[in-house]
Amino acid sequence: MPSDTLDKFRRLYSELPLIDKSSAGAAAARDAVLTKPAGALGRLEDLAVWMSGWQRKHPPTYTSPQVVVFAGNHGVCDQGISAFPRDVTMQMVSNFRNGGAAINQLADAYGASFSVLPLALETPTLDFTKGPAMSEEECCTALQAGWNSLSQDTDLLVVGEMGIGNTTVAAAISAALFGGTGADWAGPGTGLTMEGVRKKATVIDAGLSLHAEILDDPLLVLQHLGGREIAAMAGAILAARHNKTPVILDGFVVGAAAAILKKANPAALDHCVAGHMSAEPGHELLLRHLEKEPLLTLRMRLGEGSGAALALGILKGAIAAHNGMASFADAGVSGETSS
Amino acid sequence: MPSDTLDKFRRLYSELPLIDKSSAGAAAARDAVLTKPAGALGRLEDLAVWMSGWQRKHPPTYTSPQVVVFAGNHGVCDQGISAFPRDVTMQMVSNFRNGGAAINQLADAYGASFSVLPLALETPTLDFTKGPAMSEEECCTALQAGWNSLSQDTDLLVVGEMGIGNTTVAAAISAALFGGTGADWAGPGTGLTMEGVRKKATVIDAGLSLHAEILDDPLLVLQHLGGREIAAMAGAILAARHNKTPVILDGFVVGAAAAILKKANPAALDHCVAGHMSAEPGHELLLRHLEKEPLLTLRMRLGEGSGAALALGILKGAIAAHNGMASFADAGVSGETSS
Repeated sequence: MPSDTLDKFRRLYSELPLIDKSSAGAAAARDAVLTKPAGALGRLEDLAVWMSGWQRKHPPTYTSPQVVVFAGNHGVCDQGISAFPRDVTMQMVSNFRNGGAAINQLADAYGASFSVLPLALETPTLDFTKGPAMSEEECCTALQAGWNSLSQDTDLLVVGEMGIGNTTVAAAISAALFGGTGADWAGPGTGLTMEGVRKKATVIDAGLSLHAEILDDPLLVLQHLGGREIAAMAGAILAARHNKTPVILDGFVVGAAAAILKKANPAALDHCVAGHMSAEPGHELLLRHLEKEPLLTLRMRLGEGSGAALALGILKGAIAAHNGMASFADAGVSGETSS
Repeated sequence: MPSDTLDKFRRLYSELPLIDKSSAGAAAARDAVLTKPAGALGRLEDLAVWMSGWQRKHPPTYTSPQVVVFAGNHGVCDQGISAFPRDVTMQMVSNFRNGGAAINQLADAYGASFSVLPLALETPTLDFTKGPAMSEEECCTALQAGWNSLSQDTDLLVVGEMGIGNTTVAAAISAALFGGTGADWAGPGTGLTMEGVRKKATVIDAGLSLHAEILDDPLLVLQHLGGREIAAMAGAILAARHNKTPVILDGFVVGAAAAILKKANPAALDHCVAGHMSAEPGHELLLRHLEKEPLLTLRMRLGEGSGAALALGILKGAIAAHNGMASFADAGVSGETSS
């Protein structure tokens, strides 16, 4: 839709559906009578209630989880900020299509559909130290591509990404939205040396300096410092909110995409749970700004949606327990005595 | 086998097979060429290598995981240390058999077989504040029942437990093995008040005092302070070690069973991973003594093997990624450049 403008997306995140309290309440009421001491399933109980509320139905379902990976290429790679050459983005897209990547195995293990959407890989964004990464039209096209990627019947969404250089982009976005310098947000990504990380921080600082005038507008931050796969993920997360679909966030780069929405509307990520905390150091700081407690901390730092996909397994278990357990009354189990 | 003595089990934990370095090495070698930056799958990579080493084969498999729940009743319940009446143990065994408990749903969600083994529920152990909880023969019978519960084709074992009062027993065992008083190890269990926890600590101290002379012998600790389901879990964990089967440990009570073996032989739990950290406060301390970092921390405190069963999902993903991913060479993906 070349005629889109960023104002269309400003409207979409300004008018957000809230959680369905009736469905969430029905889940909480059922949880209270299941054959376990109150609260004994910990976060699994919270997840079941949260799923019900955002799916707007009870019982919640885990029948058609969807994983979609967006791929983009980044002009800022010209600054030498990645341990891998830019060609790897397209090579990994082929690997995704052939079923050979980690995310393919994880999506399959937990019964999720999988697709990959490369976004104009032959035309990298501009180097953000030289000018805006994207035109308004390019940014809108990517947001819309993400919006369109959500399947109608999806009941739980994982968005992932592949893009050589995109932890630099994520760090620049995080600094732009939440303050700090490149050094506060830059990490080794796929495996930079300490010297490489210092150079990456300098590149981020150059971008923040060049675009200083637009840093108070999250969507302009996305356009000027972001990338197509990051815009697409923001679009997909927003689409999920408007389509009764809870979302599992992945690591640092997905977090930066989500952060655009969070900064634009503090309630924009209420339908999202943090699947894991990445080993990329900026992610812990970013999760604090997103106000999300990760489900998993397994020192993963792969991207592709892999940490969130692993968390699909946790959600699967949470929904199975909530929907399948007997109540105290049904099972003839005695309740608590006074202790 | 009424003629068994504890000496039989002393021999079984004294002569333990070690990890198969050849299989573990084959897994590490494969991990190094998979299409991801080195180390980017974090603990999933370690788990795949560990599974290979203890299954003594490469590639590792996740084809017949087994969950077995042992149930026992405890004389120390006479001291009023639980929020639930003792009848609940048998009621929950019926719930397990009818498929209505949390563990049934979780085992099913991750493709594991499930069974429950009640151990002389009609004859609770003796109250350990009055005498030894079990005779040597009773303790051996329970250890052997656990040993026998391992299926021949199991490639990953979860042991769980049900037994009203058994967090008191687990706390007493932990204090006996690792020092401290009842107050250091007692927690709310299924939902005691603060006053109830204080009383529980006093009961534990009474048991430690009565049995002070045997506390330096782990198997006598098991016999004097333990319970049948705890002995059975120790037997099953030991059987797994002798039968090429890695084990996922659950929470505080399973940890106490495992601790008997760890204290008897510091290498006895090398084939075990900690599935989760329970919300029961003693478990964090116990995990430090067991030298295990939990895979999950989700504030669960249900028992039944539920936290370990949830970790089955993580292992399933780790094995799927290790076995299914393409190598850099196969996928035509470029490796790292100098950064």
